[in-house]
Amino acid sequence: MSAPVASCKTVLASKVSASFRDQIKKDIKERDIRPKLVGFLANEDPAAVKYAQWTAKTCAETGVEFELRKVDKQDLEQKIDEANEDKAVNGIMVYYPVFGGKQDQYLQNCVSIFKDVEGLTFKYIYNVYHNIRFLDSGETTKCIIPCTPLAVIMEFIGVYNAVLPYGNRLYGRTITVINRSEIVGRPLAAMLANDGAKVYSVDITGIQTFTRGTGIQLQAHKVEDTELTLEQVVPQSDVVITGVPIASYKLPSKLLKDGVIAINFSSFANFEDDVKQHASIFVPSVGKVTVAMLERNLLRLHDYQHREAK
Amino acid sequence: MSAPVASCKTVLASKVSASFRDQIKKDIKERDIRPKLVGFLANEDPAAVKYAQWTAKTCAETGVEFELRKVDKQDLEQKIDEANEDKAVNGIMVYYPVFGGKQDQYLQNCVSIFKDVEGLTFKYIYNVYHNIRFLDSGETTKCIIPCTPLAVIMEFIGVYNAVLPYGNRLYGRTITVINRSEIVGRPLAAMLANDGAKVYSVDITGIQTFTRGTGIQLQAHKVEDTELTLEQVVPQSDVVITGVPIASYKLPSKLLKDGVIAINFSSFANFEDDVKQHASIFVPSVGKVTVAMLERNLLRLHDYQHREAK
Repeated sequence: MSAPVASCKTVLASKVSASFRDQIKKDIKERDIRPKLVGFLANEDPAAVKYAQWTAKTCAETGVEFELRKVDKQDLEQKIDEANEDKAVNGIMVYYPVFGGKQDQYLQNCVSIFKDVEGLTFKYIYNVYHNIRFLDSGETTKCIIPCTPLAVIMEFIGVYNAVLPYGNRLYGRTITVINRSEIVGRPLAAMLANDGAKVYSVDITGIQTFTRGTGIQLQAHKVEDTELTLEQVVPQSDVVITGVPIASYKLPSKLLKDGVIAINFSSFANFEDDVKQHASIFVPSVGKVTVAMLERNLLRLHDYQHREAK
Repeated sequence: MSAPVASCKTVLASKVSASFRDQIKKDIKERDIRPKLVGFLANEDPAAVKYAQWTAKTCAETGVEFELRKVDKQDLEQKIDEANEDKAVNGIMVYYPVFGGKQDQYLQNCVSIFKDVEGLTFKYIYNVYHNIRFLDSGETTKCIIPCTPLAVIMEFIGVYNAVLPYGNRLYGRTITVINRSEIVGRPLAAMLANDGAKVYSVDITGIQTFTRGTGIQLQAHKVEDTELTLEQVVPQSDVVITGVPIASYKLPSKLLKDGVIAINFSSFANFEDDVKQHASIFVPSVGKVTVAMLERNLLRLHDYQHREAK
């Protein structure tokens, strides 16, 4: 603790998202379009309200029309259906939790895949697991991927190695992901393994490895349970990504190898204060990148909708 | 407690299922077909193993080819995909829990809707909520409904009133359902309300009413939160259906109105021993009807598959 501060570079989400926001803004202006995103808020959760305000602010800056619809949770499914059918709406998102648990997973599937800016419908999550990157066999319609913000950050900070062929750019990397939720952690582990990494996926029930086999033999990743512990996998990892939604959770910094890349996507700080003593790069949060990616997905869906209409 | 035993009729699932089993057996024999059901077992849960054995026994009796495939849970998704593609397989079921929680809900959606004998894919559950009874607008392809066993029992014991028009045959009935899981309780409450009942749906987070409005005004049910308590809704109920998966849970018999119809679909006894002092009809379990309905759904899917092939 008394050692001098090491040369850790802290990368803020605002910096990563800036170039995307600029590009989106330019694109919208040049093409003179006004894509519309509808956000449904059906709870009083302060984090959701704040996230909605943040989305509104970013959309206003970039020229996206954002409409927040506050609805009773019992009416939400019907309101989603109406937005699915409404040609004036290009994208739909929902501020979860609504009911919590499996009923929220049901609601995720009520959003049309052609308007799902979050990529949370079964189709998109299935495609992540199966390393299917397009909706069509002609490869003209890219899938929406729920964990894009983390992928974008990892491209920005050089975790993806552009020298390697596309699709294998994480080959050689060992990555620990602490969180295996169906919304982020499990698709993220799958996506990283599909890109060639060896991934340790950690949650309270145990640790699993996600890989494409020795020498990237498999078309998509496989998953195996392992008896390894957090104390064994973290010190081997080039990248450690945390997403534990608990204020008191802190990953012990002493487990991190020197020069590790540390990324936190929880709304709570999952790394200890001295993480910078060990890490080469530290990304304390990802929220602003998430909003930028929602906008990018919205533009993509807007274009698909207009292409379909031709 | 010292009162004489009231005239309660106990209806066993074996009795309800007998006529269905006989019909299925006759149908298979006369048509000289051999529909094939594949069950996936990826856990060591004794209840799941027992349920699998029971499915095997019933299928053997009725002429259905049942194949139990024991697989590693990490391979399950791929094995489901293979069975989806295999023309020799007419129906697929999975013995849950596998991973538990939302990952199991993901797996439910991996089964093709054309082979989903349990009716647990999103499409079927969505259709239950929206009172959509056919997959096609021509109304030739009936949906698979996850809570059919309970509907069949309620038809058998006269809860559905055949004098009323089809679709409204529970109008006038007040029904309490204790369990609001995404697999049974919530679709069941929706189905009963869609058929005209006033339903109180109870779980540990509170009570909701499911109705089609005064005088059955709505095409499908709506849901509202209520401040009413279990002590208030159970005494009003003509039918009380329990599905609490906890051995220690017992609904106090003193809440039941005289002549109530009491149905338990939990694998544990959710009613107290003296339930028969109050109930007119008591159905202590539904398991055998569930297996018969899996077979009926299998036959239906078998026919759809062969019709498609023409």
